[in-house]
Amino acid sequence: MKLLSFIVDGRASFGAVRDNGVVDLGKRMAGCATLRQLLEAGRVTEATKLVASTAPDHPLDSVSFAPVIPDPGKIICVGLNYRDHVAETGRTVTEKPALFVRFPCSQVGHLQPIVKPRVSDDFDYEGELALVIGKQGRHIPASRALDHIAGYACYNEGSIRDWQRHTSQFLSGKTFAESGSFGPWLVTTDEIPDPSKLTLQTRLNGAVVQNTTTDLLITGIPDLIAYISTICPLVPGDVIVTGTPGGVGLKRTPPLWMRPGDTVEVEISGIGTLRNKVVAEAA
Amino acid sequence: MKLLSFIVDGRASFGAVRDNGVVDLGKRMAGCATLRQLLEAGRVTEATKLVASTAPDHPLDSVSFAPVIPDPGKIICVGLNYRDHVAETGRTVTEKPALFVRFPCSQVGHLQPIVKPRVSDDFDYEGELALVIGKQGRHIPASRALDHIAGYACYNEGSIRDWQRHTSQFLSGKTFAESGSFGPWLVTTDEIPDPSKLTLQTRLNGAVVQNTTTDLLITGIPDLIAYISTICPLVPGDVIVTGTPGGVGLKRTPPLWMRPGDTVEVEISGIGTLRNKVVAEAA
Repeated sequence: MKLLSFIVDGRASFGAVRDNGVVDLGKRMAGCATLRQLLEAGRVTEATKLVASTAPDHPLDSVSFAPVIPDPGKIICVGLNYRDHVAETGRTVTEKPALFVRFPCSQVGHLQPIVKPRVSDDFDYEGELALVIGKQGRHIPASRALDHIAGYACYNEGSIRDWQRHTSQFLSGKTFAESGSFGPWLVTTDEIPDPSKLTLQTRLNGAVVQNTTTDLLITGIPDLIAYISTICPLVPGDVIVTGTPGGVGLKRTPPLWMRPGDTVEVEISGIGTLRNKVVAEAA
Repeated sequence: MKLLSFIVDGRASFGAVRDNGVVDLGKRMAGCATLRQLLEAGRVTEATKLVASTAPDHPLDSVSFAPVIPDPGKIICVGLNYRDHVAETGRTVTEKPALFVRFPCSQVGHLQPIVKPRVSDDFDYEGELALVIGKQGRHIPASRALDHIAGYACYNEGSIRDWQRHTSQFLSGKTFAESGSFGPWLVTTDEIPDPSKLTLQTRLNGAVVQNTTTDLLITGIPDLIAYISTICPLVPGDVIVTGTPGGVGLKRTPPLWMRPGDTVEVEISGIGTLRNKVVAEAA
């Protein structure tokens, strides 16, 4: 099942994709106004049954896509988690994953514009596989980690490279308002039993700029969940963005930046394509 | 005015300190269930008038303190922002502030236990001045930054040093569950017109381990707000934790760690003393 968050007629809701339309679960499931609340309530199975017996409420092209989870409690990103990307940065592989954070205000949904800020032109793409937590846990063993996942989505972890390098800490370049995107939808784990068997491609104006398979993650998804849940609880709606492969614009000669008017896409097998236009921040 | 978040009779609320008691604003101000909502609604002046004419609902020692803001949308911490701390770490001063994040689950309130995790004994204190945003803004000029602050509190930015040093990114050591504290209350800006004129002291079992004045911040509060709000909007309830001075336990010989049974205090002039016992994480 493909679950999405959207806005229709000025109302924020969530639902599921069916027959090129959207079953509006926000108005059909009392007590669940958001996808995060659906996950918190543990009602995905109930939603699946409802969607199977319900005609779409809205044509897919009539809704505005929101980020898959618009309001995650945590967005934890993994840096330097593919060897070809580590190599192009000139860094070395660390035994443990390098974690940093984006804030929810830094992400938009599928087909919404991502914003190049006024203060920089060094606006880079990072195509990544994201997962959303479906079941609470602390000290989750890697062997049971996949049971805690609700599903998977594409993420474009848009980065302002000069600000990212102001200091040793990446945050400043990683959480500019509306600089990244998360979508188009969450594909539930029944359709993706093994997240290490996916292909990921990033395209800028149609040209392939990143291309990988997810078996190449240095710290795989089960170990990421084990590591992070040693630190703190993971709860429904939390997002882990698993890292980007080689090919980022920063490390090309000359650098390849995203510019207003460009179209950037992140396509992952079994999920779909996340597409965004680039606009300049309003003056 | 001193504003606090608390739990009484199993109910989460917020209020103001008066006459060694608490005026329960959560039950007296319809539409505002939390301190964050009071700030979002811009009703601090109204609260001030109400408190002036209302006897306390609860003795101060009958409530359990929650973190000042239990559910901030952002907790942005500043690393390496006092010269004596930069020097003891062997790093160099950067032109821009080094920013990282804690999640809300990493903080507890005044007099609640802070938790040394199972996986490490390298549990360090960091006494810091925190501010809470009261008015939304983006691209806030430093000259108007103080207008966006609701007030100030103490923060103990408890850090798990070996995990902090797993990679270049600090997050892993900075957001262990219940490893830090935020309190005891928010002192509104009318009582602290200039946050660069405060003294800050951290004590471990009564011994002074950190001692500074806030005029020594490398990047002062107005410039922090200008820098961060260039990246993304700051909204009511957001928290900025401004950095710790020299004297951390990691850099002593031998290192001085917080251990179960210890008492740690952060005292800031004009605010008060944030006090927590250390406990070990349950097995």
